[in-house]
Amino acid sequence: MAQVKLLDLWVSAPAMRVRIALAEKGIEYETQEEDLRNKSPLLLEMNPVHKKIPVLIHNGKPICESMIIVEYIDEVWSDKSPLLPSDAHERARARFWVDFIDKKIADPIRRLVWTSSSTENKEAAANDLIEFFKVMEAELGDKPYFEGESFGFVDVALVPFYSWFYTYETLGNFSIAKECPKLVAWGKKCLLTESVSKTLPDPYKVYEVVLEYRKKLGLE
Amino acid sequence: MAQVKLLDLWVSAPAMRVRIALAEKGIEYETQEEDLRNKSPLLLEMNPVHKKIPVLIHNGKPICESMIIVEYIDEVWSDKSPLLPSDAHERARARFWVDFIDKKIADPIRRLVWTSSSTENKEAAANDLIEFFKVMEAELGDKPYFEGESFGFVDVALVPFYSWFYTYETLGNFSIAKECPKLVAWGKKCLLTESVSKTLPDPYKVYEVVLEYRKKLGLE
Repeated sequence: MAQVKLLDLWVSAPAMRVRIALAEKGIEYETQEEDLRNKSPLLLEMNPVHKKIPVLIHNGKPICESMIIVEYIDEVWSDKSPLLPSDAHERARARFWVDFIDKKIADPIRRLVWTSSSTENKEAAANDLIEFFKVMEAELGDKPYFEGESFGFVDVALVPFYSWFYTYETLGNFSIAKECPKLVAWGKKCLLTESVSKTLPDPYKVYEVVLEYRKKLGLE
Repeated sequence: MAQVKLLDLWVSAPAMRVRIALAEKGIEYETQEEDLRNKSPLLLEMNPVHKKIPVLIHNGKPICESMIIVEYIDEVWSDKSPLLPSDAHERARARFWVDFIDKKIADPIRRLVWTSSSTENKEAAANDLIEFFKVMEAELGDKPYFEGESFGFVDVALVPFYSWFYTYETLGNFSIAKECPKLVAWGKKCLLTESVSKTLPDPYKVYEVVLEYRKKLGLE
């Protein structure tokens, strides 16, 4: 097995977080694309608790949960592109916002993307998602990146969802650019970073595969 | 304001986590007990996003979310009683289990303790909680503490709930000692640690105040 191996799925935002961190650090790694309807024995062995991607396998040992993996990468390959701030209070603040993202983003996305619910339910889900993005936009303020002048931990956590914006907008019938112009400008700026541009998939391809899954699940 | 101040609630398990960490490090601090039905202006100012305790205020700056606070304490007062392991992989593993606790424990507790639901619903909630404790017991195995030979990060995260065991058992009509004997033995052992013994409240007092709240909420 390669020294660093990622159990991956190209369209998964959590998996993208790990790929961005690996790219920021210039780490060479092998990737194994998973089929979530037919998980590999390796995935089940390496993440027996959650059975979810992404899993990073480093020297044969698994690390699970996307932002725990990103923090691990930041600690082990600390010589290049630090992702967490060096100041303890700023670090706690970055962890707070990553925790906030992980607590708040999943539920409205699930209701918007993975249900066949009525228009009203979609509207409520879309409103909750916009509400979330507005909190993040307020936290961004006029800074270029969430932690200030350079791309960091909170950016890594949130920017993968930028490649899903088109899907949310199309399914929810709203415009994130209209609701949160600064957040969209931030996403565009992040895309100028090589680690992000080479990781984020084409938004139309994301939408296409989401529609396919929705059809398979009987939601379309 | 004191250099270190904790916005606190004696019966809150997340707040106990922070008090245990502060005691482990021997940090002097001021505490402000909050009334959750009438939150102080300071709490609303210091944690405008979640408006929840615990909040640690250090040199005038707030840190929110219990385990982010514990990690902050571990980083800032790093000279004594390290809570996170020094090895990066072990650290990721500790963070994984803390994340697992925070993802899995809240929902069955809410259903068991804070609803007036039917006996069947209580039973389902109790079963889910036991299931969670069994996973934690399996992870503990025959180790004295979750991270091995010494009291650490995962112990800090879980042991406050030990003071609620009597409440869960009484409301759910089951015995944790019978279902998870090793976990109860671990809880007893943790109580021999001064930081834990001086932090954890009397289980009967917890039950008493829970019954009081349940009556106020019309659940009894």
